[in-house]
Amino acid sequence: MAVGLLGEGITEVIAVTKDNAAPIGIIVRSGQAPKMILFKGSKTAENVEKYGWVTANFVSDSYLYPLYAFSDVAKSDLRKVFVGEMVMQLLRDADAWMAFTAQIVNETKDAYFVELEPVGSEYCRDEMRPVNRGFNSVIDATVHATRYVMNHDPELRELIEYHLGIVRKCGGPRDIEAAALIKEVCGF
Amino acid sequence: MAVGLLGEGITEVIAVTKDNAAPIGIIVRSGQAPKMILFKGSKTAENVEKYGWVTANFVSDSYLYPLYAFSDVAKSDLRKVFVGEMVMQLLRDADAWMAFTAQIVNETKDAYFVELEPVGSEYCRDEMRPVNRGFNSVIDATVHATRYVMNHDPELRELIEYHLGIVRKCGGPRDIEAAALIKEVCGF
Repeated sequence: MAVGLLGEGITEVIAVTKDNAAPIGIIVRSGQAPKMILFKGSKTAENVEKYGWVTANFVSDSYLYPLYAFSDVAKSDLRKVFVGEMVMQLLRDADAWMAFTAQIVNETKDAYFVELEPVGSEYCRDEMRPVNRGFNSVIDATVHATRYVMNHDPELRELIEYHLGIVRKCGGPRDIEAAALIKEVCGF
Repeated sequence: MAVGLLGEGITEVIAVTKDNAAPIGIIVRSGQAPKMILFKGSKTAENVEKYGWVTANFVSDSYLYPLYAFSDVAKSDLRKVFVGEMVMQLLRDADAWMAFTAQIVNETKDAYFVELEPVGSEYCRDEMRPVNRGFNSVIDATVHATRYVMNHDPELRELIEYHLGIVRKCGGPRDIEAAALIKEVCGF
């Protein structure tokens, strides 16, 4: 069962917490509250622990995934919203967003398990995003790259290069820019 | 520059021609007419040659990609539309569609190069499709599977299995069904 804009499975959004943005998967399993797994030491984890809120921002510009995975968000890219009796923040350019109160319900040595309760949502613009394998491969390459920069695993490099090849073949201009950014942070 | 719903790069749609549906990439390069490359011997190529039209159907159900790649469309899944002074056909459940007159402008031994002229378009429903790597991997796996069933290349099998793994991890129920269909046609 979907929860608002979140379908069943894992939806990749830009998670905004106080003065911070980062791509994150929100997990929805049938009959359960939406969840996130946050690695300890990340700014998102620190903020969720401290402030108890997160917004899921839906964007149709693939470049924002590696951008916010590997660099800080500019203050001017964020805006405030009063929702769930709190002031939260959003990406100014989100096509849509959902706001959540967030509670750590479990933890391991490395990660927090966070349960999300939806408290608000808005569609800002009708953005139909047709299927582009280049866009899609930017997301996959970004996910692999966030691990690759930590461990330089050659199998991850192979996967990243496979996806960057699809971006070159199928992507639009922003996907191509995103691929260049990913190559740069990976040191290829 | 985008052409209607088609962004620059390759957009993966369900192409409907007379009594036929198949997933196909529509290529848009800056300043050029939209194009398709159609393999000779395919029903889509035969129909484009004979009737000179195709509709691009935008769907948010990943299952339709392997379904129409590997089986015939049910007549009841199609509907007629009068556009560009012709009767064309659409997928009944498309979120949006574009209709084109189609002209073969070049050919090789194996393929036709087809130029498309947009003659009509409609948004049927506001369907926001958030980013799901499982959905995306169904598309990639389908593309690889259409080649795999011809040549049983073990490298393709490895890529398909990589993508099916992402579907298992990130996909929703329809993506999981699509993965099962892909496995079945590949004989895994």
